Amino acid sequence: MRLMLAAMLFATLGFSSFADAGDAMAEMKITALPEPVILPEKLTGNAKRLADKAMKDTRAYDLVASLTTEVGPRSAGSAGDRAAVAWALANLKRLGFRNVRAEPVEVPHWERGEISASIVSPYPQEMFAIALGGSIGTPAEGITAPIIAVESLDALGKLSEKQVRGKIVYISEKMNRARDGSGYGPAVAKRGSGASEAAKLGAVALVIRSVGTDYDRNPHTGAMRYQENVKRIPAIAISNPDADLLDRQVASGKPVTFTFTLSSRTLPNEMSANVIGEIPGKTDEVVLLGAHLDSWDVGTGAQDDGAGVAIVTMAAKLIDELKEKPLRTIRVVLYANEEFGLSGGNAYRDAYLGQADKHVLAMEADFGAGRVWKLESKVPDTHLGEVAAIFETVKPLDIQWAGNDGYGGADIGPMIRQGVPTIEPGQDGTLYFDLHHTENDTLDKIDPEQLAQNVAVYSMIAYLAANKENTFGRLPKPIMN
Amino acid sequence: MRLMLAAMLFATLGFSSFADAGDAMAEMKITALPEPVILPEKLTGNAKRLADKAMKDTRAYDLVASLTTEVGPRSAGSAGDRAAVAWALANLKRLGFRNVRAEPVEVPHWERGEISASIVSPYPQEMFAIALGGSIGTPAEGITAPIIAVESLDALGKLSEKQVRGKIVYISEKMNRARDGSGYGPAVAKRGSGASEAAKLGAVALVIRSVGTDYDRNPHTGAMRYQENVKRIPAIAISNPDADLLDRQVASGKPVTFTFTLSSRTLPNEMSANVIGEIPGKTDEVVLLGAHLDSWDVGTGAQDDGAGVAIVTMAAKLIDELKEKPLRTIRVVLYANEEFGLSGGNAYRDAYLGQADKHVLAMEADFGAGRVWKLESKVPDTHLGEVAAIFETVKPLDIQWAGNDGYGGADIGPMIRQGVPTIEPGQDGTLYFDLHHTENDTLDKIDPEQLAQNVAVYSMIAYLAANKENTFGRLPKPIMN
Repeated sequence: MRLMLAAMLFATLGFSSFADAGDAMAEMKITALPEPVILPEKLTGNAKRLADKAMKDTRAYDLVASLTTEVGPRSAGSAGDRAAVAWALANLKRLGFRNVRAEPVEVPHWERGEISASIVSPYPQEMFAIALGGSIGTPAEGITAPIIAVESLDALGKLSEKQVRGKIVYISEKMNRARDGSGYGPAVAKRGSGASEAAKLGAVALVIRSVGTDYDRNPHTGAMRYQENVKRIPAIAISNPDADLLDRQVASGKPVTFTFTLSSRTLPNEMSANVIGEIPGKTDEVVLLGAHLDSWDVGTGAQDDGAGVAIVTMAAKLIDELKEKPLRTIRVVLYANEEFGLSGGNAYRDAYLGQADKHVLAMEADFGAGRVWKLESKVPDTHLGEVAAIFETVKPLDIQWAGNDGYGGADIGPMIRQGVPTIEPGQDGTLYFDLHHTENDTLDKIDPEQLAQNVAVYSMIAYLAANKENTFGRLPKPIMN
Repeated sequence: MRLMLAAMLFATLGFSSFADAGDAMAEMKITALPEPVILPEKLTGNAKRLADKAMKDTRAYDLVASLTTEVGPRSAGSAGDRAAVAWALANLKRLGFRNVRAEPVEVPHWERGEISASIVSPYPQEMFAIALGGSIGTPAEGITAPIIAVESLDALGKLSEKQVRGKIVYISEKMNRARDGSGYGPAVAKRGSGASEAAKLGAVALVIRSVGTDYDRNPHTGAMRYQENVKRIPAIAISNPDADLLDRQVASGKPVTFTFTLSSRTLPNEMSANVIGEIPGKTDEVVLLGAHLDSWDVGTGAQDDGAGVAIVTMAAKLIDELKEKPLRTIRVVLYANEEFGLSGGNAYRDAYLGQADKHVLAMEADFGAGRVWKLESKVPDTHLGEVAAIFETVKPLDIQWAGNDGYGGADIGPMIRQGVPTIEPGQDGTLYFDLHHTENDTLDKIDPEQLAQNVAVYSMIAYLAANKENTFGRLPKPIMN
């Protein structure tokens, strides 16, 4: 079994050379944990046995291998999406889950089409480019226009319509590498809203530097959004080496002309499904483990989110193999269309709104397969002793406490906003954004040992949450949902 | 100035984690150096001053930046090839070289065209593929056939015609990473002769795992050759992640069908040129510094061989800046079409056959821009004391002696076979084959400090070779040229 170079180095270095750069955690104030509540020895003993078993188990890796080999890319509304739903149903049944079902979810269907991009002048060069998800296409003859380069979305906001009108806006901002992925938020703003902000100033198209930390010639896609009542213009990303090349041509001081053709288009909505399987408990309370089944249409969706699918599925499966019915039902939810609009997460919330109070905890895995190195939560402060007890149990896996300001995850977000508390294992994301939303998100990027450690952590937490007497309370609902 | 992740790690690790794996040197018997001859203090002092200056000089990096930004890909016979010749003439003149000239070289002109490849069954997946240089195209409707997978060219040779006829041969052999690049030789055999060997058994096409050490979805191209009187079949490489995917489908035991279309073709020969510039000496003897100006048509030819162009150009330029005419002429030769048939190297040999005896030493730079960590030579044993003196001078740059069985380089090979001795600085090639002949061979992969160290080494050696009294003797000419 092979690992990529970076993963080899990763292991050798113990991450030390990365953890410093741009890591937001060190600067954050972290809510301290109180004294842990005391859990029954039977529960902590079983949790430890689960971890030992998980660390030796290769079935999570086998699941990702199967999904990436037999299904591959599976973007919302595509044939791969349908194949993934069938794959998930078959595999949850094969693994002995009960109440296995596909709950229909309507999803948008955006088709990438073909792209061709290049610098026309001063020095003609081909560009490796990719449409941002949701972009409209260009006219058949393409769009050819002068580049106006800006360093960020903020800098774009300071330009006048006179400077921008008729031009292609190019935003050159770079993303910082960080173990906790904290470089993503600042860098991704240009992807989401850059097109409409540029269009407001009369731009004819948007080109951004890829939101990614690699130096491969694989541009990064990801969702963008058009604002209402703003002219829609095509939006694409170029790879980081191509952005460097464009930067150097811009720096030459000579006018730079760019051209591209793009045949992206939006088709009618399709039906997909949230695929659900359960380890039934003795009560009607639920511990939810979520990951998303869809992927972007590039790569084979190994880290994003084949890894998550494997982690939550095997975490539940190992608990089932204890052969003792848990107190609460463990429900694995493999969500439809996370990437392009959170269809599955919203549909689940709508379908289970009346049972939100029965959801004792929701956990999600959607940040690759790097080793879990931190634990966060979002529970009422009054219930932090419960989290402390769980943290004590997983801490020996070299995990540090990271506070009660956890995010939880995109797919479980709608349920969190219904008051469901969350515990969030934090994967090492140092290398995650090298591959995120690119053709390079393939099986070889997953380290089987790190994946197994993830299963161990999720399995322990889910087991304890499903079996200990106390819950984690309820979160206050935000005024706006 | 940014470096890629791998380069960051490279520096952090001091290469130790790589140097063990597959390094052929440790197992080789190395000819020991005798006592060095004593060089005049003036020469060794100047050599040290050259090194000090080179290590602080950024002009080599600027040259690669200029070539990759303003010209980019420049395969034989292409518009980029012509632009590169113009670029080289302009830059050698700008830098003050004398006798700057373009010596015409006829080159083949192969056009890559378009490729589209995928696994048809059992699990349909798109493949990232690239034509091998020189391959014919497929019919317009493509080639669709069952895969017969073999582990190596040797294993192919053991198959019967019955097993192969009508199928696409897939050779899955992997390349080993090694600091000295020694994994390349064994891995590249399938690229050069796989198509004809497969065709002899009735295969309809050849697919190989990329000859490269990365896990990027960027397949590696490179030259292949058809044998005379053997049916020509199309030959392509798939990226390493795609080869993994194909391997897994083959391992499923289900029959695997593959399809691809390819529009590669050979066009009429074109004219290109060896671009030459000199630092004239006091005698008619020559020290030749060579690199190749062409690149493959993928990437921007940064490591292969923009780095070499910059190294030999700046090594000579720094010697010129000493403001003292060397004893011998230093001739920089930027060769035409190394990649697809060594046109420039052969043309130079033909043009300078009568002056071969005047070539005191030939050196080449064509293995990227990794730090020079070893020195080899190929000189008569009687003259190893001369090499020893040079080794003593460069040794403080953390360089080790690696024997008198040096290869020299592809472009200077024809002159070496005319008796010209060579000294060969060995670059660290640990990461070289991650990028070699792929779209990823871009400027960001070059570490300016390591490039500067290369200039220092080449400059010192060229200076000493051009100014010390003794030569390195003559090599015996092989019976077959």
